[in-house]
Amino acid sequence: MAKNTNAAVLLIHCPDRQGILAAVTDFINTNKGNILYLDQWVDKEDGLFFMRVEWSLDDFKIPREKIKEYFDTLIAQRFEMKFFLHFKDEKPRMAIFVSKMQHCLDDILSRYSSGEWNVEIPVIISNHPDLQYIAESHNIPFKLFPLRKDNKTMLEPLEIELLDSLNIDVIVLARYMQVLSEDFINHYPNKIINIHHSTLPAFVGAKPYHQAHDRGVKLIGATCHYVTADLDAGPIIEQDVVHITHKDTIDDLVRKGRDIEKIVFSRGVAKHLDHKVLAFRNRTVVFD
Amino acid sequence: MAKNTNAAVLLIHCPDRQGILAAVTDFINTNKGNILYLDQWVDKEDGLFFMRVEWSLDDFKIPREKIKEYFDTLIAQRFEMKFFLHFKDEKPRMAIFVSKMQHCLDDILSRYSSGEWNVEIPVIISNHPDLQYIAESHNIPFKLFPLRKDNKTMLEPLEIELLDSLNIDVIVLARYMQVLSEDFINHYPNKIINIHHSTLPAFVGAKPYHQAHDRGVKLIGATCHYVTADLDAGPIIEQDVVHITHKDTIDDLVRKGRDIEKIVFSRGVAKHLDHKVLAFRNRTVVFD
Amino acid sequence: MAKNTNAAVLLIHCPDRQGILAAVTDFINTNKGNILYLDQWVDKEDGLFFMRVEWSLDDFKIPREKIKEYFDTLIAQRFEMKFFLHFKDEKPRMAIFVSKMQHCLDDILSRYSSGEWNVEIPVIISNHPDLQYIAESHNIPFKLFPLRKDNKTMLEPLEIELLDSLNIDVIVLARYMQVLSEDFINHYPNKIINIHHSTLPAFVGAKPYHQAHDRGVKLIGATCHYVTADLDAGPIIEQDVVHITHKDTIDDLVRKGRDIEKIVFSRGVAKHLDHKVLAFRNRTVVFD
Amino acid sequence: MAKNTNAAVLLIHCPDRQGILAAVTDFINTNKGNILYLDQWVDKEDGLFFMRVEWSLDDFKIPREKIKEYFDTLIAQRFEMKFFLHFKDEKPRMAIFVSKMQHCLDDILSRYSSGEWNVEIPVIISNHPDLQYIAESHNIPFKLFPLRKDNKTMLEPLEIELLDSLNIDVIVLARYMQVLSEDFINHYPNKIINIHHSTLPAFVGAKPYHQAHDRGVKLIGATCHYVTADLDAGPIIEQDVVHITHKDTIDDLVRKGRDIEKIVFSRGVAKHLDHKVLAFRNRTVVFD
Repeated sequence: MAKNTNAAVLLIHCPDRQGILAAVTDFINTNKGNILYLDQWVDKEDGLFFMRVEWSLDDFKIPREKIKEYFDTLIAQRFEMKFFLHFKDEKPRMAIFVSKMQHCLDDILSRYSSGEWNVEIPVIISNHPDLQYIAESHNIPFKLFPLRKDNKTMLEPLEIELLDSLNIDVIVLARYMQVLSEDFINHYPNKIINIHHSTLPAFVGAKPYHQAHDRGVKLIGATCHYVTADLDAGPIIEQDVVHITHKDTIDDLVRKGRDIEKIVFSRGVAKHLDHKVLAFRNRTVVFD
Repeated sequence: MAKNTNAAVLLIHCPDRQGILAAVTDFINTNKGNILYLDQWVDKEDGLFFMRVEWSLDDFKIPREKIKEYFDTLIAQRFEMKFFLHFKDEKPRMAIFVSKMQHCLDDILSRYSSGEWNVEIPVIISNHPDLQYIAESHNIPFKLFPLRKDNKTMLEPLEIELLDSLNIDVIVLARYMQVLSEDFINHYPNKIINIHHSTLPAFVGAKPYHQAHDRGVKLIGATCHYVTADLDAGPIIEQDVVHITHKDTIDDLVRKGRDIEKIVFSRGVAKHLDHKVLAFRNRTVVFD
Repeated sequence: MAKNTNAAVLLIHCPDRQGILAAVTDFINTNKGNILYLDQWVDKEDGLFFMRVEWSLDDFKIPREKIKEYFDTLIAQRFEMKFFLHFKDEKPRMAIFVSKMQHCLDDILSRYSSGEWNVEIPVIISNHPDLQYIAESHNIPFKLFPLRKDNKTMLEPLEIELLDSLNIDVIVLARYMQVLSEDFINHYPNKIINIHHSTLPAFVGAKPYHQAHDRGVKLIGATCHYVTADLDAGPIIEQDVVHITHKDTIDDLVRKGRDIEKIVFSRGVAKHLDHKVLAFRNRTVVFD
Repeated sequence: MAKNTNAAVLLIHCPDRQGILAAVTDFINTNKGNILYLDQWVDKEDGLFFMRVEWSLDDFKIPREKIKEYFDTLIAQRFEMKFFLHFKDEKPRMAIFVSKMQHCLDDILSRYSSGEWNVEIPVIISNHPDLQYIAESHNIPFKLFPLRKDNKTMLEPLEIELLDSLNIDVIVLARYMQVLSEDFINHYPNKIINIHHSTLPAFVGAKPYHQAHDRGVKLIGATCHYVTADLDAGPIIEQDVVHITHKDTIDDLVRKGRDIEKIVFSRGVAKHLDHKVLAFRNRTVVFD
């Protein structure tokens, strides 16, 4: 996880053509930035260029608050880039949505309280009061929105208002058992991260462990993905599996699944918080 | 893999009730059989009992050729059992079906020629001549049936005739690129083993690696399963996965997939050859 | 994890000979016990028999408090058995030892508070005050024993006194950074479970991640094992690994390692709490 | 695996300082090379820079046979680089050393004969005649050097003479059961690849599966590494593991181990043949 160093992180994607890499590294080098990390990848099939670069700002000539403007003017426009600029000493602000299951929440809060993650968590939101005591034991405000199908259009705008007032950068759905509306999702493009308890696209929708048991599979898994309007079809950040046998009941699958869910979820969220993920169409580039 | 010892293997399933285990072990012990291995499992949800037991025949009082009859009369009828009796010094006779891809065939033949597997392979059948040279280099008869959709009903009966004349116990589809007819499949219930290049039920049907690439998944896998009339829906014996990244092209998936296909396939076939698999409905019990 | 049902669990090991399985199942069946689970394994190399059986006590003729005596008299003595009898509605009492790292503790307490584990945790013991707040937020008594090399012989007897007064059944060392004395260990044979942050026997002793980084390995792992007087050489219950690359610094290994540590630890402890582990010499039999 | 395209591959390592990346990409861009792939990594701990770059030679101004000289003069000397230049349409020439076990050999030859690997195999060398028939069935010359401890100093120079006459680029030890002399090893620095049947540094030396069984581990594995004079201590390219249980006998470990050996070996060799590995000291950088 990112240390609080005086450094910039730039994520870029654009149509591929010659000279992009040289232009970007030249922009940094010429202005006395020391490159700490660089990775790039070209999707030859679709003709797309992706890049992540980190550089020290200690001797960088362009003032921090001007970097975005300068880069846009001098480089990005020329190459029709879409780019995201972050600073490593700025902590992303994350909201956690939960319902009744605590394992993913506990796992996140363990990383938060131990300082493993470079993140602020100003709020935990739920449609049930069950996990309020966990939020309180970590001194994190807990907001109850008893959201159901029939009051979603009324309550979601209040959630958005709260989230915006808190300057939330990323929303993580830690086994949140409500489908978000398209309006809500479109308000936070590639900023809502979900954990689904199957290796998508297998077992889309409800009760994937029941589906898995019925089908007699020998593996179960979990998928961490960005939420899009198309349910369970958003860009996948991370997936993993665990072996099962005929002896495993549905209860066993649920129990074994919890471990793979929380690990896959936390890996995916950490990649996002470290600004290592670029989503495009229904896919992701995940830098090391 | 089974050694050529003087031992019997019994696979059983039946409705669960008290006393089955005691009755079976008593049948063996009373007749001076020495139990070498025993495993049983009860599917409490469906009320089914499954068991696998191996015992030495060195001092067994019932002659080998009478065991089936005695067990049926004394035990199986009482408990409404379905049972399968095998002897460890009898080699299963296996037919391999291939098309043009050689990696699963090569892997099987490597195990065969090194003596890893307790099996006879009297024939390799293909709808293309491409891999004939491999069969020949192992001195295994190669039979070409240039099967297509339009001649399947004509050629499949000839295949069945050949297979039956060779007393084939098990048919393995080593990346055989034709769908078998329902008649063919019903002729060999739970005796045809296929390798599918995805973790079923994800990516059923054709070109699973293309589907996986399009969906942007982070894992690909393979499934070894018994063939039933319902395509890609038969009982699963074994599954496994390998991690991929955004950098992997479809060619990379095909290449990485070959390794997981051949390993999963061979694990599944070995379990079958060792009489460790019981299929029921669309599921399997796989004993250790 | 075990449900609180009215059932007995018996773990057995003894020299192998004919008739053990039949004698045990007969003991249960004759007395109207309904077998819920049975697994057995014979170590042919060393001539040892291992067994785990669970049966319902609903109609069992022998009173619960007499089962141990009856089984000992009627069966165990005849076969020179070592056996352990547990009841599924009795919760094991577990003490957790910690130092400064919280990830394994957090993971255990998440399972405890969600009811995943059938266990009581009457005390958390530490040689540092750092994690007291976590114990308090779960309302578990926290006892500080500021144990060092020079006061170990003085403080350990006080720890034993406390543990015995609390009727502790199992002690788990959740990244406890002190070596226990031989006296302490011998007081709790096969009842102390440790997590070591390497795949033993690789990287025994201090700083395994530093050792792994120096050696340039491509995998790191964790080992959950019973503690014996011989450091890091006790019977292994569970192991697993995670892939690393040249890009991973020691800090990355520590971070990735935490996830595999807590998962391997919890898997191992759960197996123990479910009475599924038999340790003998420096090895374990772990039933499914 | 590399396609036979008109492209160059450059592997570089040197002391880290500013401007290396810009200098290399500028050298390629200025001369009309189109970069197809670029990856770089800085070992901050040791202050070392590593890079791999592929570029199309279709419009490249510097003639193919002059690239090495130009790059050395214009770039490499300035940065004190060690560099390796390869062309993607040149097939590496590989010698395989075997003894009696065939699984790794079979796996390599399956990839070779199917065209998966971009490689020539002009010779298979063995100290036993057992696998000659496999070489012959692939029309690869088989050379028997009945090497033992007492004739090693006599026979190894003859092996070197043969290998040099065949312009061998890489030697793979496919379960070759002889220790090579220091002289032999020094003749092929970072060009000899071995498969060891444990996850080094665990179970160095002879009979690792016996050692693993004695220790009661729950995982076995394999390590693909460059051979150095220090036995089993060379730079590791690839490692992986497979889970085992108490039920696995030494024979089972040997059987399960074969699968992980051949997969790990082939992954490592493929990385080398694709010019994706840089070894330094006792470690490797393995590019994606």
